[in-house]
Amino acid sequence: MFKKVLVANRGEVAVRVIRTLKEMGIKTVAIYSTADKNSLHVQIADEAICVGGPKPVDSYINMKNVISAAVLTGSEAIHPGYGFLSENDLFAEMVGDVGIKWIGPRPETIDLMGNKEHARNEMRQADVPVIPGSLGYIHNVDEALEVAHEIGYPVLLKAAAGGGGKGMRFIYHDEEMQENFTNAQAEAKMNYGDDHMYIEKVMLDCRHIEMQVIRDQFGNVVCFPERNCSLQRRNQKVMEESPAVSMTPDMRADMVDVVTKAVNAIDYENTGTIEFLQDQEGNFFFMEMNTRIQVEHPVTEMVTGLDLVRLQVLVAAGEELPLKQEDVKIQGHAVEMRLTAEKPEANFAPSAGRVDFVFLPTGGPGVRIDSALYNGDMIQPFYDSMIAKLIAHDDTREEAIAKLARIIDETSVSGVATSKNFQKALLKDEGVLQDKFTTKYLENKFLPEWESSLAEEQ
Amino acid sequence: MFKKVLVANRGEVAVRVIRTLKEMGIKTVAIYSTADKNSLHVQIADEAICVGGPKPVDSYINMKNVISAAVLTGSEAIHPGYGFLSENDLFAEMVGDVGIKWIGPRPETIDLMGNKEHARNEMRQADVPVIPGSLGYIHNVDEALEVAHEIGYPVLLKAAAGGGGKGMRFIYHDEEMQENFTNAQAEAKMNYGDDHMYIEKVMLDCRHIEMQVIRDQFGNVVCFPERNCSLQRRNQKVMEESPAVSMTPDMRADMVDVVTKAVNAIDYENTGTIEFLQDQEGNFFFMEMNTRIQVEHPVTEMVTGLDLVRLQVLVAAGEELPLKQEDVKIQGHAVEMRLTAEKPEANFAPSAGRVDFVFLPTGGPGVRIDSALYNGDMIQPFYDSMIAKLIAHDDTREEAIAKLARIIDETSVSGVATSKNFQKALLKDEGVLQDKFTTKYLENKFLPEWESSLAEEQ
Repeated sequence: MFKKVLVANRGEVAVRVIRTLKEMGIKTVAIYSTADKNSLHVQIADEAICVGGPKPVDSYINMKNVISAAVLTGSEAIHPGYGFLSENDLFAEMVGDVGIKWIGPRPETIDLMGNKEHARNEMRQADVPVIPGSLGYIHNVDEALEVAHEIGYPVLLKAAAGGGGKGMRFIYHDEEMQENFTNAQAEAKMNYGDDHMYIEKVMLDCRHIEMQVIRDQFGNVVCFPERNCSLQRRNQKVMEESPAVSMTPDMRADMVDVVTKAVNAIDYENTGTIEFLQDQEGNFFFMEMNTRIQVEHPVTEMVTGLDLVRLQVLVAAGEELPLKQEDVKIQGHAVEMRLTAEKPEANFAPSAGRVDFVFLPTGGPGVRIDSALYNGDMIQPFYDSMIAKLIAHDDTREEAIAKLARIIDETSVSGVATSKNFQKALLKDEGVLQDKFTTKYLENKFLPEWESSLAEEQ
Repeated sequence: MFKKVLVANRGEVAVRVIRTLKEMGIKTVAIYSTADKNSLHVQIADEAICVGGPKPVDSYINMKNVISAAVLTGSEAIHPGYGFLSENDLFAEMVGDVGIKWIGPRPETIDLMGNKEHARNEMRQADVPVIPGSLGYIHNVDEALEVAHEIGYPVLLKAAAGGGGKGMRFIYHDEEMQENFTNAQAEAKMNYGDDHMYIEKVMLDCRHIEMQVIRDQFGNVVCFPERNCSLQRRNQKVMEESPAVSMTPDMRADMVDVVTKAVNAIDYENTGTIEFLQDQEGNFFFMEMNTRIQVEHPVTEMVTGLDLVRLQVLVAAGEELPLKQEDVKIQGHAVEMRLTAEKPEANFAPSAGRVDFVFLPTGGPGVRIDSALYNGDMIQPFYDSMIAKLIAHDDTREEAIAKLARIIDETSVSGVATSKNFQKALLKDEGVLQDKFTTKYLENKFLPEWESSLAEEQ
């Protein structure tokens, strides 16, 4: 087993990973930007090393600085968390080149799955159902129109190189395609340095269902119970739960087969998550694969009793998976919401500053709060606005949601604005309570209603 | 189901109970002393009512005030937590007399099991193995000497009416009995208003193993996995875990049979815990029964996935237990330690005052911290010194202990002294790590060594 591991991240995920490493008896190295010198991940690590200025480009995604930190501290492996360099194949390769183990899939795999069009092709070849769309890159508007006619509008125009919505457009008819193709391509080029585009059919009234999987170097595969992450705002997940109410045991078994086939086809190593769109008939289609641990992994841990970070480390250290598919059982139901330092009442404007007071209602059965917040902490404007993950686990979905509502109600943060009231309202919404929502529900139905109710109150 | 429940307690247990009630959709009423007006349990309850001055006798154990609070607020039931009035049969009866449901066993049962000698007799009749000792009260030193000769020294002289060590003496020979009987009896009289004494054989090299049980009014019984609470200081538990390493599945099945027999014999209702001494051969003997929820119930919840307070409420509301004995499975291992506002380095002197900063390391899988602490909270000198229960759950005992050590390491409280360093040292002790400890280990072996190591450091 590794003696020392560097965690190339900050915030709650760095804290999360450091804790498991410590419990495994592994020495931990934190990295930090000058803005983060008093952050929790720095305080709880055995060692901490500054990697540059506040902006991510100067520190957390400055590859040379991060690798130097690992070499200088004698770290044997790097855990990238999520975000930052976690899906950067060049970085993963550089890490390997200096003799440090990357806790994640091989760089080639990151590259393959990171290019959304390559990934779709690979999955098609592995007999994984894929959302109808272009079979190769789209280079110009004429090609785009041709594919759109073939699969039918509406379609989604996407940048092959990136996620997060840059270069992405919903297109409803030819005219819109003609108007938007060029600027979408330019946006892709600007953000990812790559102007390859592709097209997918827009699948309406679908759920976002994903399945996390882990595979060791001996080819053993374990799939975890699926998560429903359909409540989204601007393609960012707002609530995640496991299991999905829409999945029958048969569908789940099918998905396990498909995911197993997929990871075997690409000789995947370590953990990753395959995201599917599921239509109202229960059919599911590959969207993309995230080649890292995910933000929402705690709901999976709550329903399985497993520590996924520990499994990641074991697999990266060359060990065989200590469990088999049949050992994975679903116990109850878990729901997670992300508390952010944002003002949802003002179009989710980010909020930064000193946290004068924080109370996170730890305690009682089935409660988990992953956070790096502490009293007196500074919320920096440079990073993701998520400040805590609030997770509830109980026997049934109804009970888990009642628990989560209670947790959110007790949560108290002052000094910065938070998303608390938005989350409270969501957990009172009938669509959410009755599991009657697809990926557009939040933006098309909940938010307009909530915003008008806020306007009425004023 | 009840619409409104009053929680007749304070601190972490009041918070623990209020949270479950809220999740069940039940309105909650907190009671508080003038010293506790800003306490967490007051803040999170739907209503709060002051029941008197800081001293427990003026507020939390002032029966009339507590009952008045319940009546005034229209509470349909009272949950007593542990401590205070939780094992007071007179109070339980008064509660019933005003038409309010007591969330606990019937007053007669509390009375029966509260009188340690009556309890022993009752258990003997139910064929429950009981520690050898007097078969009735001991009224004078001659009777005491007779019993001592019969069962053999050393013996334990105990007050029939009370727990907590008042009126209790370890007696090693006749002379000591002659010297101590009268003042022990006087101490019992003074503390419990009752000078009935009894004698038990002192069982050396034993573990404290206890089993929690719940029984509904239809006679359904469910026993939970046993807890090992052998690490004790002055008869106060210092570490609790479940399951006990010393228990084989056969012993556990035997204990389930015995506990089931015991609660059926006394027509027990609601939850309680039977405490046993287990000798090195695995034989176990009834010590006493606690007729309430216990401090250490979270370890049981962690290994079973159940909410014991919820079950208490269901049973008190007249519902049938929603599970059967065969549904109770042991998943992994859980360990709890109690963080106290005490200075173990100065003979566990209690510490009170303002909590300037608190960080409780919630987060990650298998972590639970039950506490009413918040930043700026006041630790009052009037109440129990426990400020947080730190609980770790993992696949194995070794992993759970590593996790607990990590949790304790991260825990930070300033403004008052805490037991943190004592607990850190305990979790590095070979006897503790190897599960090689009986009820006297902490006081006879660990503490003297730790105290001398502290002296050396200075």
